[in-house]
Amino acid sequence: MAYVVIIGTCDTKLQELLFLRDQIKETAGVETFLIDVGRKPVVNKAITIPQAHLLSNHGDGADVSNMPRNELLELMTGCASKAVQDLYRAGLVDGIVSAGGSSGTALAAAVMRDVLPVGLPKLIVSTMASGDTRPVVGETDITLMHSVVDVAGLNPILRDILSNAGASIANMALSHAARRAKKMEDTAAESMKRWRVGITMFGVTTPGVDAIRAHLESNYPVETYVFHAVGTGGRAMERLIREGQLDAIIDLTTTEICDHLGGGVLSAGGGRLDAAVEASLPNIVSLGALDMINFGPRDTVPKKYEDRVIFEHNATVTLVRTSPEQCREIGDFIAEKLKKTKRSDMIEVWIPKGGVSMLAVPGGAFEDSQADKVLFETIKTGLSGSGIKIVEDERDVNDKGFARDIAEALAAKLGLQKGG
Amino acid sequence: MAYVVIIGTCDTKLQELLFLRDQIKETAGVETFLIDVGRKPVVNKAITIPQAHLLSNHGDGADVSNMPRNELLELMTGCASKAVQDLYRAGLVDGIVSAGGSSGTALAAAVMRDVLPVGLPKLIVSTMASGDTRPVVGETDITLMHSVVDVAGLNPILRDILSNAGASIANMALSHAARRAKKMEDTAAESMKRWRVGITMFGVTTPGVDAIRAHLESNYPVETYVFHAVGTGGRAMERLIREGQLDAIIDLTTTEICDHLGGGVLSAGGGRLDAAVEASLPNIVSLGALDMINFGPRDTVPKKYEDRVIFEHNATVTLVRTSPEQCREIGDFIAEKLKKTKRSDMIEVWIPKGGVSMLAVPGGAFEDSQADKVLFETIKTGLSGSGIKIVEDERDVNDKGFARDIAEALAAKLGLQKGG
Repeated sequence: MAYVVIIGTCDTKLQELLFLRDQIKETAGVETFLIDVGRKPVVNKAITIPQAHLLSNHGDGADVSNMPRNELLELMTGCASKAVQDLYRAGLVDGIVSAGGSSGTALAAAVMRDVLPVGLPKLIVSTMASGDTRPVVGETDITLMHSVVDVAGLNPILRDILSNAGASIANMALSHAARRAKKMEDTAAESMKRWRVGITMFGVTTPGVDAIRAHLESNYPVETYVFHAVGTGGRAMERLIREGQLDAIIDLTTTEICDHLGGGVLSAGGGRLDAAVEASLPNIVSLGALDMINFGPRDTVPKKYEDRVIFEHNATVTLVRTSPEQCREIGDFIAEKLKKTKRSDMIEVWIPKGGVSMLAVPGGAFEDSQADKVLFETIKTGLSGSGIKIVEDERDVNDKGFARDIAEALAAKLGLQKGG
Repeated sequence: MAYVVIIGTCDTKLQELLFLRDQIKETAGVETFLIDVGRKPVVNKAITIPQAHLLSNHGDGADVSNMPRNELLELMTGCASKAVQDLYRAGLVDGIVSAGGSSGTALAAAVMRDVLPVGLPKLIVSTMASGDTRPVVGETDITLMHSVVDVAGLNPILRDILSNAGASIANMALSHAARRAKKMEDTAAESMKRWRVGITMFGVTTPGVDAIRAHLESNYPVETYVFHAVGTGGRAMERLIREGQLDAIIDLTTTEICDHLGGGVLSAGGGRLDAAVEASLPNIVSLGALDMINFGPRDTVPKKYEDRVIFEHNATVTLVRTSPEQCREIGDFIAEKLKKTKRSDMIEVWIPKGGVSMLAVPGGAFEDSQADKVLFETIKTGLSGSGIKIVEDERDVNDKGFARDIAEALAAKLGLQKGG
């Protein structure tokens, strides 16, 4: 048996939610829980957790009838999160689905992001699926299906879309339930364990990452997880560390820090680097692509950067060289974050003095020995006395030997023997 | 039996694509076609349409080994589109799926958008699912699943994600195949036909649209399709008209034209109004929300609009009152588009002189009789001699009587009798 939670506002969309529920039940072996997060209570035997129960169990019995819309949204998000968490802990969530407009999407997405791990099927049918979905999806695996028409009235288009959604979440839940059962068996075979290593990558560090992956996977019981350092990538890695889904990190490409500090478009926020430090994971940190801040098309580069070396990667991506002053900020950021560790023996910082990206090597568009020097010195100074090992290496970040040595450094931290 | 097409670059992602294929086949009754759109030919018996066949059958046997990336992408998109179209015409597509990064996503999405109708299941597992998805999804029902990690290496996270994706598209395809079979039966019962009426809506015209829907659906064999006029909504309606999925239109909320002409963020492009005119559908056009251009947060409003009446709807939506000069442009746009009809008897333009939105009524923030007058006069002048009926009405666009009369006007065009 697999279990699917449906979240929706039954006062405005009962007909559509019941249709979705029926579609899910078309797939044999799937049971549903319908949670009503509407403003007005609705009585219907298909509702598993009625609005009044939700409010009394998780919302201190608040009266929401005249509550401002934003407050209501916040309260209901909290209530639904608690209800879903209870179900999840009881092993009763193999999938979760919702259908709505902007408010319904925001509510359901917050519940999914806050309560459920990556890998557990999450689907929202939404009018907001074609546009900026980052506030909804974030670094998670929430799947968005565009409703095309409003979720208002069961015309044939919406019936087709909701039929697809129901079929999708039902079978994903069955797949999840099967994996869940299998994982419980597999824990017995713990000796087959492979170490799960996260690696951060960018276009300009791809050869280095490919070499690290190849070396680790062919010599050690390791499987790699590559994260594209475009903001959501770094956030995803940090999230998976917190979920306990990674055992070690090669944070080769810390470039998102440039965008965080320099106003670029690929920031992963100010929390970057935190998770691995907090979890005291084996963590090899390098300086990949710290030579660049990312912007969109050329005319979106802020005026203050007009005097910089600017590189047009393509029509939609423009790179700005980080200045020596910014390199100092970036170096300070890294040193401050890493110094917080309680296990300095778990961290190493590798400095690729031959170039931090494809563009920063001698003769490259972003070659700037002065800026590099500030970056390297700031990190060395910042970490002095911390106990964190610093490796100064003359090669560049994409050098195959550099990659192999970084991979070996991680293997040593994990206590791995070649071919083991 | 249901059929799922898989599109992918087998030279770079064969392992991942084969895993996805296996996951799809876990669901009984589903057959797959794997189309290889990679640069280098790959030999594998699981590939249904190898790259070389694709190029020789649909790409004039072009040599792509050294073709620039963008050209390759364009060529392969065209080849794959033709291949998928052939399969679709043969009744061999109940679902389509892909997995990849930015280029793979762009290619698969273009094929899905260009070849397959709304309602046919479409899924892309993508690193690009968390961000601006409008270039990918457009006005269609392409579903995006965030891969979280790169589609590179079958670590457990990606295996979970691809397992979910395989289960999702497989069961959606079964649902589609079942609907397809049922529709073939249903064509016999043509006497049960309901007229499919598209209606455009905005927050400030919602009461009017609700009243139209209620009147039409309770008195006539009509089902309504509501489109939220935020750019993708208008485009979706135009697309469904072209797909033959709508029988008549009440274009109550033509507001996207303001954003197209005035630089707002909710434009549906310059093709707005075209589809219904070209298809000569019964088409009642009104002037809903032509008093406003939409922008994001207050500080994103262009400087040139600083002297206008500006209304902050909420923290992320700011509205600018259209000026008399803009109202002339808007009126011209509407008249020019509608005049192209070959069936002027199919179109009526209803002018709500009491206010084109909730904000434009007397005492409202956007009350501006001068601007309204220019709009109304421009349309009347532009359409004079066209044969298109113009109804000048003293009520506002949300008036219940106005809504009922517009609904009746459409019913008359469809030749419907009350209760029929």
